[in-house]
Amino acid sequence: MARLNWGMVGGGEGSQIGPAHRLGAQADGNFLLAAGALDQDATRGKAYAKRLGVAEDRAYGNWQEMLEHESGRADRVDLVTVATPNATHFEITRAFLAAGFHVLCEKPMTMTVEEGEEIVALAKATGRICAVNYCYSAFPMVREMRHMVASGQIGKVRLVVVNFSHGHHGDASDADNPRVRWRYDPAMAGVSGQFADCGIHALHMASFVAGDNVSTLSADFASTVPGRVLEDDAMINFRMEGGAVGRLWTSSVAIGRQHGFDIQVFGETGGMRWASEQPNQIHYTPVGGRTQIMEKGEAGLSDEAARLSRVPIGHPEGFPLAVANIYVDIAAAIRGETHGAFPTAMDGLRSMAAVYQAVASAEANGAWVDARPPSLR
Amino acid sequence: MARLNWGMVGGGEGSQIGPAHRLGAQADGNFLLAAGALDQDATRGKAYAKRLGVAEDRAYGNWQEMLEHESGRADRVDLVTVATPNATHFEITRAFLAAGFHVLCEKPMTMTVEEGEEIVALAKATGRICAVNYCYSAFPMVREMRHMVASGQIGKVRLVVVNFSHGHHGDASDADNPRVRWRYDPAMAGVSGQFADCGIHALHMASFVAGDNVSTLSADFASTVPGRVLEDDAMINFRMEGGAVGRLWTSSVAIGRQHGFDIQVFGETGGMRWASEQPNQIHYTPVGGRTQIMEKGEAGLSDEAARLSRVPIGHPEGFPLAVANIYVDIAAAIRGETHGAFPTAMDGLRSMAAVYQAVASAEANGAWVDARPPSLR
Amino acid sequence: MARLNWGMVGGGEGSQIGPAHRLGAQADGNFLLAAGALDQDATRGKAYAKRLGVAEDRAYGNWQEMLEHESGRADRVDLVTVATPNATHFEITRAFLAAGFHVLCEKPMTMTVEEGEEIVALAKATGRICAVNYCYSAFPMVREMRHMVASGQIGKVRLVVVNFSHGHHGDASDADNPRVRWRYDPAMAGVSGQFADCGIHALHMASFVAGDNVSTLSADFASTVPGRVLEDDAMINFRMEGGAVGRLWTSSVAIGRQHGFDIQVFGETGGMRWASEQPNQIHYTPVGGRTQIMEKGEAGLSDEAARLSRVPIGHPEGFPLAVANIYVDIAAAIRGETHGAFPTAMDGLRSMAAVYQAVASAEANGAWVDARPPSLR
Amino acid sequence: MARLNWGMVGGGEGSQIGPAHRLGAQADGNFLLAAGALDQDATRGKAYAKRLGVAEDRAYGNWQEMLEHESGRADRVDLVTVATPNATHFEITRAFLAAGFHVLCEKPMTMTVEEGEEIVALAKATGRICAVNYCYSAFPMVREMRHMVASGQIGKVRLVVVNFSHGHHGDASDADNPRVRWRYDPAMAGVSGQFADCGIHALHMASFVAGDNVSTLSADFASTVPGRVLEDDAMINFRMEGGAVGRLWTSSVAIGRQHGFDIQVFGETGGMRWASEQPNQIHYTPVGGRTQIMEKGEAGLSDEAARLSRVPIGHPEGFPLAVANIYVDIAAAIRGETHGAFPTAMDGLRSMAAVYQAVASAEANGAWVDARPPSLR
Repeated sequence: MARLNWGMVGGGEGSQIGPAHRLGAQADGNFLLAAGALDQDATRGKAYAKRLGVAEDRAYGNWQEMLEHESGRADRVDLVTVATPNATHFEITRAFLAAGFHVLCEKPMTMTVEEGEEIVALAKATGRICAVNYCYSAFPMVREMRHMVASGQIGKVRLVVVNFSHGHHGDASDADNPRVRWRYDPAMAGVSGQFADCGIHALHMASFVAGDNVSTLSADFASTVPGRVLEDDAMINFRMEGGAVGRLWTSSVAIGRQHGFDIQVFGETGGMRWASEQPNQIHYTPVGGRTQIMEKGEAGLSDEAARLSRVPIGHPEGFPLAVANIYVDIAAAIRGETHGAFPTAMDGLRSMAAVYQAVASAEANGAWVDARPPSLR
Repeated sequence: MARLNWGMVGGGEGSQIGPAHRLGAQADGNFLLAAGALDQDATRGKAYAKRLGVAEDRAYGNWQEMLEHESGRADRVDLVTVATPNATHFEITRAFLAAGFHVLCEKPMTMTVEEGEEIVALAKATGRICAVNYCYSAFPMVREMRHMVASGQIGKVRLVVVNFSHGHHGDASDADNPRVRWRYDPAMAGVSGQFADCGIHALHMASFVAGDNVSTLSADFASTVPGRVLEDDAMINFRMEGGAVGRLWTSSVAIGRQHGFDIQVFGETGGMRWASEQPNQIHYTPVGGRTQIMEKGEAGLSDEAARLSRVPIGHPEGFPLAVANIYVDIAAAIRGETHGAFPTAMDGLRSMAAVYQAVASAEANGAWVDARPPSLR
Repeated sequence: MARLNWGMVGGGEGSQIGPAHRLGAQADGNFLLAAGALDQDATRGKAYAKRLGVAEDRAYGNWQEMLEHESGRADRVDLVTVATPNATHFEITRAFLAAGFHVLCEKPMTMTVEEGEEIVALAKATGRICAVNYCYSAFPMVREMRHMVASGQIGKVRLVVVNFSHGHHGDASDADNPRVRWRYDPAMAGVSGQFADCGIHALHMASFVAGDNVSTLSADFASTVPGRVLEDDAMINFRMEGGAVGRLWTSSVAIGRQHGFDIQVFGETGGMRWASEQPNQIHYTPVGGRTQIMEKGEAGLSDEAARLSRVPIGHPEGFPLAVANIYVDIAAAIRGETHGAFPTAMDGLRSMAAVYQAVASAEANGAWVDARPPSLR
Repeated sequence: MARLNWGMVGGGEGSQIGPAHRLGAQADGNFLLAAGALDQDATRGKAYAKRLGVAEDRAYGNWQEMLEHESGRADRVDLVTVATPNATHFEITRAFLAAGFHVLCEKPMTMTVEEGEEIVALAKATGRICAVNYCYSAFPMVREMRHMVASGQIGKVRLVVVNFSHGHHGDASDADNPRVRWRYDPAMAGVSGQFADCGIHALHMASFVAGDNVSTLSADFASTVPGRVLEDDAMINFRMEGGAVGRLWTSSVAIGRQHGFDIQVFGETGGMRWASEQPNQIHYTPVGGRTQIMEKGEAGLSDEAARLSRVPIGHPEGFPLAVANIYVDIAAAIRGETHGAFPTAMDGLRSMAAVYQAVASAEANGAWVDARPPSLR
């Protein structure tokens, strides 16, 4: 099975997410880094690409150059990953999609709902894959939870509780640190801080596992560190189309939480919970019964969970291989093989609509609003 | 140190909370059960009281009889515990207080805000103790958290997150069970189900640990099991007088959670969390530092926490001895000794106000409302 | 049900174990402290007894006086608890047993095997209860484990692994602290340090849960802190009469462990584990199945476990109420009622034999020796 | 930085460890699979190699063919991984080393001590890298523990406690399963079962973290499942050259344990523990202080730990990336760069000596024996 050619925009030296993408794309031998425009500084970007094994003529100075040259090659890259600053995702994703490339875009896919609508339409029109990196949905045991819900193992879902809270922005003395400050500055981050940064991962998780969409929501935003304009703590109550109730708490001032991303799903006949810091287990409780610890790699898991696990039960797999699982699925999709449900442009659009509507709700003292993008109301 | 005489109304044979009170009152030798009207069935109540060691002439058929006879005795009981059905708490508490007895009332102290105002006024007028059994506040490590906040160890409190969720009412096939059904029936439970039952413990905990009062709130109530009128799941966003943000989730359909009562407090310089199922530890994180596991019984805890711990570090103490700690404090108060901050009628009143205001908010689609009783606005 | 009269030798003011006994004996209303010789200092002991509610004429200056006067009373104490320094347990226990009292003795019951044989014979001859306070065996979930083994739920036991390790004697700079030093000094502690102090709790636990006796053992002792004569760390390999293999590690220099007492039992068809710091759960795994979390208070537990649990599922009970459970069982035995299997003089004898044999094995480079007292070989 | 050429012997389709090596070697872009003799069935092996991207002329039918052809190539593989059945490790490793290749051998490196001595001598003579895949030593937080010991953060090591226990061979009805049976059959597994399979990982871990060698040991072996000749449960007491005491328990019948591999190290001024199922944390306790949770990725870790972590704090990394870390270090060593302490032939030799000496000790009723290979006594 020949490796697919892979190209990367952004994710240069020193980037936090770049290494996770490279490891993810290449871990299982599905993709080979064949082209890249890795840095806003053309010289640095080209040099780094070459150190990563990219041929000289495919180490590009910027994405426009990459788009132009790759478009003309017979061995053009099969997939472009967009891992640039948030405000540029839309433009780059749109350009590569329009030129017929498959794209995996970092979240947020766009900065506005209108842009999201445009990407969804474009992906549909071109028939190209436009995936969005909600990578937590690719942990094997998250796929298992989705399967358990879909196959009725906990009955109709009544309640979904998701949290994504950390404390890494809780130090007021560090608030002027540029790596922190921009997130709470509307000029750079847009309309939302913590909810747009982490909360939409959690909201996507809720939809992904429940197999349902968020229909309405009510938000309470707070800025707890003096000087911040955008929220660093948010609570979203929501309802899903199928009637389930939702609770979502996200915070960046929860000092002591490193990566407190977890989900609990409660249905008519059972409940379960999963946490991203110990992603290899699900705690599952059938109604009236004992809590059972389900293990990644145990016998009898769904095909989806089994396929995405590389080492036996008891051997933990972590975040980088969840990213890898996104690439596994995209590679399979490109090859026309069976694959799992990776997040797409529609998920990116729904997230952006939820962000704008949550902002509107918070500004209206928690009024309940439609959470969906206009095209889906 | 002579034992104090203790009387009990309610808590008869088969009662869930009765044994916890008896153990709590007698564990440390502070109180001796001297009188009781334990059951609505006078014969059963008298017989049980005698089996518990109460003298024949102080085993009463009902609380009115107990009130009358005890009022006339020179060795009248020093404290009356009221552990009857909720709707009777007000009347009984009022009567004993008015007659000059100290009272420990089970929660909820009253069914209405007006009744709560009356009890507060009466306790003030008589100078008698009116305690309310928010017993979780008496775990040694909860007292330690309160001390840590009060002494500035985490700086100004920014955020308090409390949950009290269980799954014991999640089985729809059990929903007609009389022990479950009344809780969701307005005719029996009043205006609120799960929030009034468990949520107010959590709200009290937030105030107790933060050392602050809830000023405003916004509520989202849901009934997830068909046929229920009152809520079995609720989310309360709140603000405290000192500016802290609050989040409170309570549920009775969280299948798999046995007694998911926990609190997280985040301040300017640190965060901490505690859970009632493992009540002997606090996880504390100074900003920028590592999470530390604080243990009940470790050297250097506050007097408050040290005094309420009976066995050395590593030896767990549990719920019954938290109840006992309430009695330890009340006994000390009766004797005029130094004691910790046990919950009083004012806490009972604030809870009832919060219940009514949460109901109003939920009915008004989450509108923000004043959470305080009229007398304190 | 009238309270039983209870007497206490030792456990005076400042004693660590005294409060646990008083709480344990009185928590459930079974016993009332009626007599005591609480302190080696007669004046202090009498004064403290009176403060605890003992009548003046039953607050004794020493145990001999208590023995003499109580023997002559019609309302003599029903049970004597011996909580004096270790070296005196034998003499006092023997004296009270011989005079026809029931006795609960702190561990170790004796300092030699011969003394242990004498107590066993005396208890048999007099028909009196001689219990030994291996209180960990009275946690509800430990009783449940014993029941699970006895009823075949994990098949024939293959392997028992017990640990009892803490780090409270790990600070060399504290090694001269009198409260620590005596434990490693043969003149005061006898032939063994940590194994005799903590290890025998673990060895008893292994036998109690497996429902089997230790037949042979091999020991490795180590003194890791300079200046200590007796061991502060020990490993015991053993075999049980039914063929099960045993592993026991005990240490007092395991810095960071507070009270690392746990047990794992593995049989033909399942395994389970329990830890004393979280005593309200068992992790149980049927062969080929998932690990299940069993909760104190859940439906379907054995009568033994159900009877010893006072508050509902999810409400933790701790160490003091495990001690109380020993008293519950002894009270029932005194009253001729159904009761659980509390530890007796035979357990005390077996422990002492194991200590001496472990010492002999360790001195013989781990040679396998018979673990049983001579009378049972 | 050009990728190194990598060759693999064994690890064909369906192999358990093969995928972990391929992911490990290729995850970080250090190696590219350039040659392989992947299967005992030449046709299958060649076909699979080609599917993995190996060029036709480097997809070999057996290791001898691979050795011959690769030896003659200018672009010969830089590293050969040996992941064949245990009994063939020695022969293949020897052959490639002798021909001047660097080798990474799966454990056990050899089946006898003499073979181990030969490999050590050969690696020394040729100057080639001979690494052995004790991959658990490459978890970032294991490297951190080693660093903490080496830099004196817990003082002189007094005690090391390691366990490696699972329950996957605990089902007697599965004992004839060929994948299980061979492990307890001397004809196929050699002199030891569970100790040689898992125990030597734990013994290596003890030495690696303590930075010291095992000098003497005493073993107790047991076969708990009827019909087994070799041990399925073993306890090893040991002493290290620096005087530290060691305890090692390993079992394959611990039903409910998935991969119970953990280590506790106790020194003069602190203790710590780590478990392979939650490998991203260390629990560290300074003497007299609180337990601290150290996190992979936190600020201030050693260079060694920091370098081997790919994603930020709170993002778990797991077993496959520990294997990858071995390759990271080997690649750096091949390139002459700074690298961490990966396990070498000397570790493989020490393990084999320990296995034979443990067997001898167990047969001699736990007699203490020298644990070291003859050449190092």
